Parts: sequence; C-alpha cells; structure tokens
Amino acid sequence: MSSTGVSAPPQCLLKPLDFPHKTLMGPGPSNCPPRILAACALPMLGHLHPEFIKIMDEVKEGLQYAFQTQNTWTFVISGTGHGAMEAACVNLLEPGEVALVCQNGIWGQRFADMVDRNGSVAEKLIRPMGQVFNLSEIEEGLKKYNPAILFITHGESSGATAQPLEGLGDLCHRYNCLLLVDSVAALGGVPMYMDKWGIDVLYSGSQKVLSSPPGTSPIAFSPQAREKVLNRKTKVRSYYFDAGELANYWGCDENPRRYHHTAPVSSIYALREGLARLVEMGLEASWKNNRECAEQLWTGVEKLGLELWVPNKEERNPCVTAVKVPEGVNWKDVADYAMKNYRVEISGGLGQLAGKVWRIGIMGYNATPDNIRLVLRALGEALENVRK
Amino acid sequence: MSSTGVSAPPQCLLKPLDFPHKTLMGPGPSNCPPRILAACALPMLGHLHPEFIKIMDEVKEGLQYAFQTQNTWTFVISGTGHGAMEAACVNLLEPGEVALVCQNGIWGQRFADMVDRNGSVAEKLIRPMGQVFNLSEIEEGLKKYNPAILFITHGESSGATAQPLEGLGDLCHRYNCLLLVDSVAALGGVPMYMDKWGIDVLYSGSQKVLSSPPGTSPIAFSPQAREKVLNRKTKVRSYYFDAGELANYWGCDENPRRYHHTAPVSSIYALREGLARLVEMGLEASWKNNRECAEQLWTGVEKLGLELWVPNKEERNPCVTAVKVPEGVNWKDVADYAMKNYRVEISGGLGQLAGKVWRIGIMGYNATPDNIRLVLRALGEALENVRK
Repeated sequence: MSSTGVSAPPQCLLKPLDFPHKTLMGPGPSNCPPRILAACALPMLGHLHPEFIKIMDEVKEGLQYAFQTQNTWTFVISGTGHGAMEAACVNLLEPGEVALVCQNGIWGQRFADMVDRNGSVAEKLIRPMGQVFNLSEIEEGLKKYNPAILFITHGESSGATAQPLEGLGDLCHRYNCLLLVDSVAALGGVPMYMDKWGIDVLYSGSQKVLSSPPGTSPIAFSPQAREKVLNRKTKVRSYYFDAGELANYWGCDENPRRYHHTAPVSSIYALREGLARLVEMGLEASWKNNRECAEQLWTGVEKLGLELWVPNKEERNPCVTAVKVPEGVNWKDVADYAMKNYRVEISGGLGQLAGKVWRIGIMGYNATPDNIRLVLRALGEALENVRK
Repeated sequence: MSSTGVSAPPQCLLKPLDFPHKTLMGPGPSNCPPRILAACALPMLGHLHPEFIKIMDEVKEGLQYAFQTQNTWTFVISGTGHGAMEAACVNLLEPGEVALVCQNGIWGQRFADMVDRNGSVAEKLIRPMGQVFNLSEIEEGLKKYNPAILFITHGESSGATAQPLEGLGDLCHRYNCLLLVDSVAALGGVPMYMDKWGIDVLYSGSQKVLSSPPGTSPIAFSPQAREKVLNRKTKVRSYYFDAGELANYWGCDENPRRYHHTAPVSSIYALREGLARLVEMGLEASWKNNRECAEQLWTGVEKLGLELWVPNKEERNPCVTAVKVPEGVNWKDVADYAMKNYRVEISGGLGQLAGKVWRIGIMGYNATPDNIRLVLRALGEALENVRK
C-alpha cells in the first residue's frame, strides 16, 4: 500500500494479452474476417459526429436490406442479442398484457422470463426442442389467449430448428396480435422477408452470420408495432431500451437527433463492415452458401455414422446443426479433443439437450467448405480417439 | 428486384469505410491508444472459453484496483454508461421504494427518470449545474425522505463539477440508506476509494479515462448492496441487467458460471488493455497527471480572457472543464472552427447549459500537455476568428 493508501496494482495486468486463434464452429460468436477486425481498430469518433451519423445511416440501410424491410424504425440496440430481446419485450408489452410465447428451446423460455419481469403475462405453446410449430396450433393459441404479441424463434440455436414463417404474420394480424421474431441465429443465413411475411418486430445479433463481434443487435419495428409503442398508456420500463428514444437517436423520426446514450462506436464500425460484406456477397448468395455448407455438414456427419437431432431436413437451421451424441460417448471429451488438436470449437447442448447433442455453427465468414471439412475431420478423429 | 424478390443492395455499403482521425477533447468518448485499438482487432474467442474467462478475471482485478475495492461483486455491464446506471437502479430499488437523487446536472435527471420507470419513487435534492452538495443538506434530505438509496454524481460532465464524497457513505449508512455513485466521467482521473468512502454501488464507463471504446460499463456492489439485491421481494425487472445473474456469469459467486448473455468479447479485450494501461501508470500517477493537465487548461483558458463555469477550483472536475461562452459569440462557430482547422473536438453544453458553455474533456490517453496546448491554440484562434 502506498502513502496515499492506494492498494497495489494487480500483476496479472502487467502481462501481455495473449491467446490462441481458434476456428469458432459453435453457435456464435463466429470468427470475424480481417476487414471487420480492422474496422474495430479504426480511430474513435464522437457518437454524434456527422461522420458517425453517416455510418449509422449506412448501417440502417444495410439492415433494411438484410431484413428485407422498408420500416423506418430500423436501428441497433447497444447490447447483445438478449438486449434486443428485452427491448422488444419492454416496448411492445404494457403491464398485464399477454404474450403468447412459442417455446421449442431456450429462447422462448428466456423471453417468457422477460415478459414476467415486465409485469406482463406469458402464455406458452410448447414443443420439444427440435420441432417447429404449425399454423393451426398457433391459431388455436391465438384464439385461446387473445395475446397482444406472439413470440417465435426463427433460427433456434438450442434446438437447431428453422421455423417456417410464411403466413404467420397474416394469421396473427387476423387476431389483432403483433408478430415478434427472434432471428439472432438465422439472419443472413436463411431467407428472411420481414415485410412480405408481415413480421412486426424482428431482431438479430451481430456475432452470428454478420460475422461481427458481439455487442450490438439490429432490430426493426413495423408501422403497427411503432404505433403500439408510441401510444402506450405507461412509460416503457427501461430508459436504455426505450425504442422511441432509440429511434430518434438513430434518425428514424422527423426530429433532430437527441443524445440518448453513447453508442458503442467501434462495434458499429464492425457491424457496418459485416453488413457491407453481406451486401457485396448478396443476400441470396449468402442464403445459398449457408445452405450448401449445411448440406455438406449433414452429409458428412451421417457418413461418420452419427444422427442429426432434427430428422426433417426442411426443419433444420442451416446456421446451427445439432448432432446426437452416441451412446457411451462423453460429448465434452470430443469437444475437448477438437479444441486441443485442431483449435476448432464444437459446442455442447443447451438446456434439456446438454450432454445429448453437439452443436455446430455455420455462420457468415465461417461458412466455407474448408471449414466444414475441418470440423468433420476433427469430429471424426475425436470420436475414434475417445472410443479407443 | 431479383427473381427471388430480394430488393437491391444499398450502394452506400459498397464504398469503403473512411473518415478523418480527430483529437477528441470533448466529454467522451476520448481517443483510444494504439494498443487498445489493436486489442479490439484480436481474434474472437467464445464467451465462455477459458482464455476469455481469464481475461474477465483480469478485468475484475483491474476494476477492483481502479475502484479501490475488495468487493467480490465487481463486474462489467454489457452496455454503455446509461446501461450501468439502469442496472444500478433496477437492482437496488423495488417498486415503491424511494431514491433520493442529488441533481446538479443531467445525470441526476436521467437517474430520476429511470427510478420512475422502475415503479419506484424519485425524490430530489437540486443544485444548479456547477455547484456541489454538502453533507448537511444531504442529511436533511435523508431525514425528510427516508430513502432506500442516495444517488450522486462524482464527476458531473454536464455541470463540470467533482463532488466530494468523503463522509457521505457513513452519513447514508446512519440513515439505513445505500450510497450509489456515478463516476462515469471521473474514474481514473480523480481520486476514488470505494471501500474507504463507504460507497455501496459504483459504476463508470469504458470510454472516458479508461480510453477504451464505448460499450462496456464497470460496476461494483458492496456486501450490503449485494444482500439487498439477493433479498429482494420482487424479481429485478430487467433480465439483461440482473446483477445476480451477471455476478454469476462474471464468476463473482461460488456457483459454476451460467450462460446469461454473450459478452461483447472484443470490447472486453479493449477494457482489459485500458485497465492494463492504468495499472502500468499507477492510479496516483493517473490522478496527478489529470490534475496537472486540468490546471494547465484552466490557466490557459483564463489567459485567453475566458471564465470557467465552476468558480471554486476545488469543486471542478479535472476530467471535464466547462468554459463560459462570452457574450456575442456563438459556441458552435468556435467548435466548428476548431474541428475544421485542427480536427479537435470541443463540445457544447448539455441541458440548461446548452449554448452557454464549451466543455473540454481531459481523459486518460488524451491527458497530455501537448493536447492541452493544441486545444488552447484551437480555441484561441477560433475565438479571434469568429469575433472578426
């Protein structure tokens, strides 16, 4: 302790920051391409400087393209995917209002928790992880609960499903219900047409197919959702996630931008570059590439004598594949082997699927035939090894 | 529109990301040193990989040093400073509980707004911007309102004051009140002894003296504050900001870390390097350097014939100085001149001081005699020019 009573500085911070480069084939974050890492290292700008506002505007345009929407309330939450989920919840729901939550994995569970914390009511439609919902069961739910919003997950990263969304918006609107879609683990890798499909609120994350670091979450509101937010009887419970304030800061209304909070400037640079990458490639090419890599993975996994968790190919999320762990194998031994020998991340299961599946992510920059071959080789060799 | 009905990609994203390098002498974000920008560009790690957990642990140790605390609940909010403010509010206050808010600038206003949104009650002690609070008026407030917590701003970046904090913790505790301190625009540049001063919750931001990009916000809870959070009658209204969950994810309790959300990995690298910089320099040297740069600025500003907003030197925030805009001068003309000719940011006033003051920030990496000379030259030349 010094003369001014200051405690000694921690020695661990006097060592350099050093760690291995890994191939992240889990459900995200995924690796960032060099151009995105380089963007993170660009000089700082003020959060209301004209150059930064231009970047925010470009991000909005990129998101409108990625979401396939014309919604003016298209912006970015300064937090990770759970932040966008919470923003959707607290803005759309007033206390006492009902959300119908389609739960076929942990995202529905988490959204229901947020609804409860918000003083609103979460009713659930439940399917086992690995199954998707159909329109008729959802219609039954809408009739039974008369919810203000319906929550559904597009790309379930825990159950590895891709939820079909066509027709769902129209159905919800017939029951005066807004449609909220979580596309964190699907956007950019699976077709998405926010406007055509009548989605009212859509959000995603930066660290999946957009191949940017985690920390920002795109979100958009349809005119109907915006009107619901602007005509609330009670104030949004969160200042940080208040969509009206955020929309203003992001230049989505007619008023001059007000200082709401300081945006994560470097992370927005990175997101801009992630969107630029998607724009250069083209959405359709990105969807196609993700699909082809997923098919390559599925074929390879089956060749190894393994089974996929989601039996119906059309219901699989091409961005996150779940592979059943065979009898007598400890999932972690395999994941550890792949990490130790190949520096490749293969993840375990989440929630009820912990220990039962491996999860392999195919996202954006990492969606290449090379990477699929690498992960298959690591998985195959690891299996042989742990079975010895 | 293509055959699959996808709209055309936005052309603005096909141009490179390009903007000038500026010297950010406003109230933050401040410039990041090359080592921190380089850290932002390091390869991605998974949010629960052992290498990343080690980095989180190092960040915790660095924060305990910067805060001068032994509190085990010391971690980082995955959001900007307003996120930490909201986290403090929603965790410490149950619906109906009273917060006594010391308001001498916009931070008190914003905290009171959050209290209100949380269903709690904000009572206020108000001082004009540029003045600080004394213990006797705070004691009157504690007697009158019997609050559960007291909110006060350490370094007011809007009114440019530094609030004396010695004795305040003891006073609050005599009235069974927890002390919450916002040190976003002071930490690292002004002495801080969280434990010695009896502060119960302290938070800051990454983009000020820590010289990292905005997007993360350090926070710590005293054992008393932790107990209040753990013994709440109602669930914290926010999942994203739930301190119990965050403390677990940050390894601050005895349980295995659970996946709560995906930390902003690259921003945590940067924060680690910002703390490493502080550790290498030493806290006392950092405080002293900031003070000396501030004195240099104050002397220089007065030599230009300008007046400081806070008359009493001891009450000035060495991290943010407010300079009165003289009669007949438009603040923005001066700021624009400095930006155009020197690429130096000089900010305007916030709230009631909009148009009345310039604000000059001196923070971390930017706290150098060179930078002070540059900002003084830009200011002096701009004044001459706009008065012509």
